[in-house]
Amino acid sequence: MTYAVILAGGWGERLWPMSTRTRPKQLLSLTGESTLVSNTLLRIAPVVSLSDALVMTSVALKERMAAELASVPAHRIIGEPRPKNTAPAIALAAKLLAADDPDAVMVVLPADHVIRDDDNFRAAIELAVAAAETKRALVTLGIRPTRPETEYGYIKAGSASDLDGVFDVESFEEKPDRRRAEGFLEAGGYFWNSGIFIWRADVFLAEVARSLPGAAAALSGVSCGPEDAGFDDELVRFYETVEEISVDYGIMEKADGVLVVPAGFGWDDVGAWPAVARIWPGDDDGNTVRGDALVIDSEDCVAYSESGTVAVLGMSGVVVVRTPDATLVCPKDRARDVRRIVEALRTRGEE
Amino acid sequence: MTYAVILAGGWGERLWPMSTRTRPKQLLSLTGESTLVSNTLLRIAPVVSLSDALVMTSVALKERMAAELASVPAHRIIGEPRPKNTAPAIALAAKLLAADDPDAVMVVLPADHVIRDDDNFRAAIELAVAAAETKRALVTLGIRPTRPETEYGYIKAGSASDLDGVFDVESFEEKPDRRRAEGFLEAGGYFWNSGIFIWRADVFLAEVARSLPGAAAALSGVSCGPEDAGFDDELVRFYETVEEISVDYGIMEKADGVLVVPAGFGWDDVGAWPAVARIWPGDDDGNTVRGDALVIDSEDCVAYSESGTVAVLGMSGVVVVRTPDATLVCPKDRARDVRRIVEALRTRGEE
Repeated sequence: MTYAVILAGGWGERLWPMSTRTRPKQLLSLTGESTLVSNTLLRIAPVVSLSDALVMTSVALKERMAAELASVPAHRIIGEPRPKNTAPAIALAAKLLAADDPDAVMVVLPADHVIRDDDNFRAAIELAVAAAETKRALVTLGIRPTRPETEYGYIKAGSASDLDGVFDVESFEEKPDRRRAEGFLEAGGYFWNSGIFIWRADVFLAEVARSLPGAAAALSGVSCGPEDAGFDDELVRFYETVEEISVDYGIMEKADGVLVVPAGFGWDDVGAWPAVARIWPGDDDGNTVRGDALVIDSEDCVAYSESGTVAVLGMSGVVVVRTPDATLVCPKDRARDVRRIVEALRTRGEE
Repeated sequence: MTYAVILAGGWGERLWPMSTRTRPKQLLSLTGESTLVSNTLLRIAPVVSLSDALVMTSVALKERMAAELASVPAHRIIGEPRPKNTAPAIALAAKLLAADDPDAVMVVLPADHVIRDDDNFRAAIELAVAAAETKRALVTLGIRPTRPETEYGYIKAGSASDLDGVFDVESFEEKPDRRRAEGFLEAGGYFWNSGIFIWRADVFLAEVARSLPGAAAALSGVSCGPEDAGFDDELVRFYETVEEISVDYGIMEKADGVLVVPAGFGWDDVGAWPAVARIWPGDDDGNTVRGDALVIDSEDCVAYSESGTVAVLGMSGVVVVRTPDATLVCPKDRARDVRRIVEALRTRGEE
């Protein structure tokens, strides 16, 4: 059977102050009435059973996720006691799924993606599930790039497999600079690394044993299922001992025979403010204006207010965000560094 | 006798949103604990009798001015029913003073100036009063320029009078562009037009009769003093009929024999945000940070918060101001255009 594994930890600090620790981006409604995490689940619902999904989130957000995702049983919303990046969360999910279903195929979905064409998305997922089952391979979705984006990693596709629309991964490429990104687009065969993964749980666990033996050892201490009495203690011990590492560095870049399903379904990972500007409609001067915001003699700006009036005069390429607690001002091309503000506030104890 | 006439109408819309119609800049404490208008009065107190001062403000601010300026009798705080710029207010003050004291000398002081050296200021005023009395001339203070400021008008001094430190005014110069302002500094003999005026009330009234006959006619309808029962009606009628015009355009530029007392006492008219940045101490990167504000990788910025956190990242030469009601973001060199925001909000009915 196919299972959804939703990665809903973290809170999106690069979207501060719209996103905060107590109001994480996956619980924001950026595209309409539903939150990003609800959309993620609803989008995959035709392909999986929601009552068998696993949601990996933080302990702090567990209750709010349970309230938000009523179709997922509360015990299948796992509250990570500490953030250890994606590899431990996915490995734990694989172990829990494989314990119940030795043939489990998992679709790993970050909870903060915006996808415009759900049908194309599901078609790509179904192709990837078929590839994961027949090839017993790690499969990733590669997004056809529409601009020389420097904020995403890239996947270089190699030769075609005998499954139509499925390719070998030749290499994973770190976030490139502008010139390299332009080269990728010209050359063709490069895809954005979406962070959406599809594989059999047992195949993934074998890769964990090979590439992350420490994580595999930590995982061996998890013998209960999420409904069992001892699970919480095992969960705490696992997250205490397991290494903090991303699935990209820890597994994907070391694994052999990784496959990629190239797809184009209007994808954005809503990492930082420029992504929000792409999602929200802009005016003729390229300004994205939301809430009680006023933009004069300005171009290519984001002006967003949740509370009070925001007035932007004579600016270009700047993000201005006002919430009841804070105001952010930075150039769009520095938006990734918003986490430095969050760090500085944390140091001051007022995050 | 010498009388202070404080011009405390208007509200400083270029300092929005720190300054608002209900919280005008003359009632803000920019330099310490006292408000600008209190400082204006205290600074001149050794030279005049505060109980004989006249304060020209708007009807809306009259009560708050009376509360703020307890040493001025309430009836000497005149609430202008509508804004008509400076010439009508000064002409009315002149008429009221001359009615009680035919030899009255008035020191006209805008309520929104910051002055760093009060002793030098008073010395200049005393010299100007002497000149106004002995020469029966209109006298203005000219500030020795310390930078090629393009936001002030300039006074070109002509030949020295026989009073030491007092010069003929050769011409008034409009706000220059940068190159012209630099030329003024190089040439020497040019002074900032401070808007601080000293003259006998009767001399000024004669100039009004000559240059602004309409205003003189309107003034002839004012026969009561501010303590008389009929005064309020006369006040309304005067402000209904009198032409809206500044004393600079209406009187000074047309008058003959105007004198200037050049002085240097650390003067700023606190017109717009760059002036505030000059008044408040800055950090090593030229940033002026007040309140709960955080500035990272930025230079030459103003970051000011009255409420909530302001975070500025990667910006240069920008003003960021947050109050409970609004946030302003604009380049320092567009700060004079903040009034365009105020106009836009007025149009929307939410100023």
